[in-house]
Amino acid sequence: MRNIKVGIWGFGAMGSGMAKMLLKKNGVDIVAVCDMHPERVNKSVYDVLGCERGERPEVIIKPDYKEAFTDECADVVLLATDSFTKGAFDKIKYILERKINVISTAEEMSYPKAQEPELAEELNRIAKENGVSVLGTGINPGFVLDLLILALTGTCEEVEYIKAARVNDLSPFGKAVMIEQGVGVTKDEFENGVKDGSIAGHVGFPESINMITHGIGWNLEKVEETREPIMSSVYRKSEYAEVEAGNVAGCRQCGYGYVDGKVKIEMEHPQQILPHLEGQSTGDYVTIKGTPNINLQITPEIPGGIGTIAMCVNSIPHVINAIPGLRTMLDIPVPRAIMGDMRELVNLKETVKA
Amino acid sequence: MRNIKVGIWGFGAMGSGMAKMLLKKNGVDIVAVCDMHPERVNKSVYDVLGCERGERPEVIIKPDYKEAFTDECADVVLLATDSFTKGAFDKIKYILERKINVISTAEEMSYPKAQEPELAEELNRIAKENGVSVLGTGINPGFVLDLLILALTGTCEEVEYIKAARVNDLSPFGKAVMIEQGVGVTKDEFENGVKDGSIAGHVGFPESINMITHGIGWNLEKVEETREPIMSSVYRKSEYAEVEAGNVAGCRQCGYGYVDGKVKIEMEHPQQILPHLEGQSTGDYVTIKGTPNINLQITPEIPGGIGTIAMCVNSIPHVINAIPGLRTMLDIPVPRAIMGDMRELVNLKETVKA
Repeated sequence: MRNIKVGIWGFGAMGSGMAKMLLKKNGVDIVAVCDMHPERVNKSVYDVLGCERGERPEVIIKPDYKEAFTDECADVVLLATDSFTKGAFDKIKYILERKINVISTAEEMSYPKAQEPELAEELNRIAKENGVSVLGTGINPGFVLDLLILALTGTCEEVEYIKAARVNDLSPFGKAVMIEQGVGVTKDEFENGVKDGSIAGHVGFPESINMITHGIGWNLEKVEETREPIMSSVYRKSEYAEVEAGNVAGCRQCGYGYVDGKVKIEMEHPQQILPHLEGQSTGDYVTIKGTPNINLQITPEIPGGIGTIAMCVNSIPHVINAIPGLRTMLDIPVPRAIMGDMRELVNLKETVKA
Repeated sequence: MRNIKVGIWGFGAMGSGMAKMLLKKNGVDIVAVCDMHPERVNKSVYDVLGCERGERPEVIIKPDYKEAFTDECADVVLLATDSFTKGAFDKIKYILERKINVISTAEEMSYPKAQEPELAEELNRIAKENGVSVLGTGINPGFVLDLLILALTGTCEEVEYIKAARVNDLSPFGKAVMIEQGVGVTKDEFENGVKDGSIAGHVGFPESINMITHGIGWNLEKVEETREPIMSSVYRKSEYAEVEAGNVAGCRQCGYGYVDGKVKIEMEHPQQILPHLEGQSTGDYVTIKGTPNINLQITPEIPGGIGTIAMCVNSIPHVINAIPGLRTMLDIPVPRAIMGDMRELVNLKETVKA
């Protein structure tokens, strides 16, 4: 039986992290990579990763996606380039039309119907026409504030109210994230940044809230979001950011889902660097008011980077096996770690090009 | 569109609990019930439950399963009669041959391949032949010590070791459970009861451990179990049991899964009445050593009775939609609470008898 063939589009922290993870797994090969970063273009994947190539075939990082991904060249492409469905749409379409499954890290793609129902319908149609499927996933959206909550509700006769929080430390992330979350700016700069969209905060509350309400059958009326600065009363310094006392350490974002005229889902996601400097511990927290009540905590939080990489790679078999179309975490069996041979988990079409 | 039709076999605490839950849901009817208890036989389900029948059709509890369940009389039968696959086998076979899906509370049925591989294969064959599916589930096995752990591993690149504990309070359970767990006996009586099998403790460690290792691709070599008495240093009294200081408050059961010659899965399930009298709080705990490490707690524990009832009822749509055959929690999308119309979640065969 041949190995599973994986392409990767976008070789930044996420895409290269998935590549490193894949190289440790059995029964799977990286067959194609597309990335436009000048430092990576036309180089060997193994050189860029700093890994031994060993017996593996060479894979050169190509800047031109048409050259990187040809018809049926892979079973699945991991797309790690965008946060928004609009930005990812043309790329997903191109891959699906090559009759290749897609797993996207774009936060909005975890439940694209929430904000882009027309694009979602179009992706569903294209995927079906080409006999393949597309899934958006990651740690959040994709797991902590949606799939995990949904799984807990499976043990409930009734659900009345859901409250969840993800409190994390942004310190390991790079400069782009610091800017998006407003780390180190003044309060005025933060407020202007939220207004002009440069401080975007977390992308995913509408997706998580829609996935939950659709999943359990609540009629969602609207989603509201707030973004406020986390003011630091102490000096904080991490690898990619510096915060003076009195300035902003990050963004506290909240999301509210309205059902039957009132809030029934409440989510909080304060993201900052070094929260422990002010006594704030990190973790993922879920409280369900219902029959029964459920009170869960994961401390510290499941790390965002590794978690997203793992969720995407661990979803590979389920996306290959899925019924063609646009899929969500509501449709596929729960992804789990892959410690054995990945080939044992899939029903491969032998027609994919060798 | 017609309502989903559900049969219930076994109308004790679990079966009647599922009936009560179903009566609160939309788009689903109870159409047949089988139970042999003299106090319930030939009575109306609504009278036994103490509920208003309202506009619903009458359902009389029948002692004869052949009379209760006829060909295609329901979309699914909830079977709440047994703990072991051997005991449930003939009943499941009968229902599947009526071309009706089955959800079983039998602990061993959550992963019947673990201890009854031949019966599992036979059930798979019968289900496929009849175009229906059979699933075993519940709170544990079925969720806390297997599906929940598997879901957490989905966020991991690597898993090295899994440790989990379910610490619960048996007080709400009835006399049969008190006897099975040895509550109130002396240490000698406990040890004799474990030897002769009358103190069985928890059924499900081999199933949970097999589901996890098979799910993540570890090669399980063996499962070991231990049962030891939880000695009480104080007097404990609950509705169905009394424990003198110095006697047994319950059974502390452990399960170990061996992979590559060493323990890689460790489970602990101490079950006793009133653990808080000796300062023991209750909860569900999972620790994964891997990349990343994960440390989860649910406090107090998800209650066993409600949890099992909910897991079975909430699995109905997924079992109806499943590919025919023997299914496990590894195959189906994660069950979640059903707060809307159950019909919206299924692809019903309109051929099922009205």
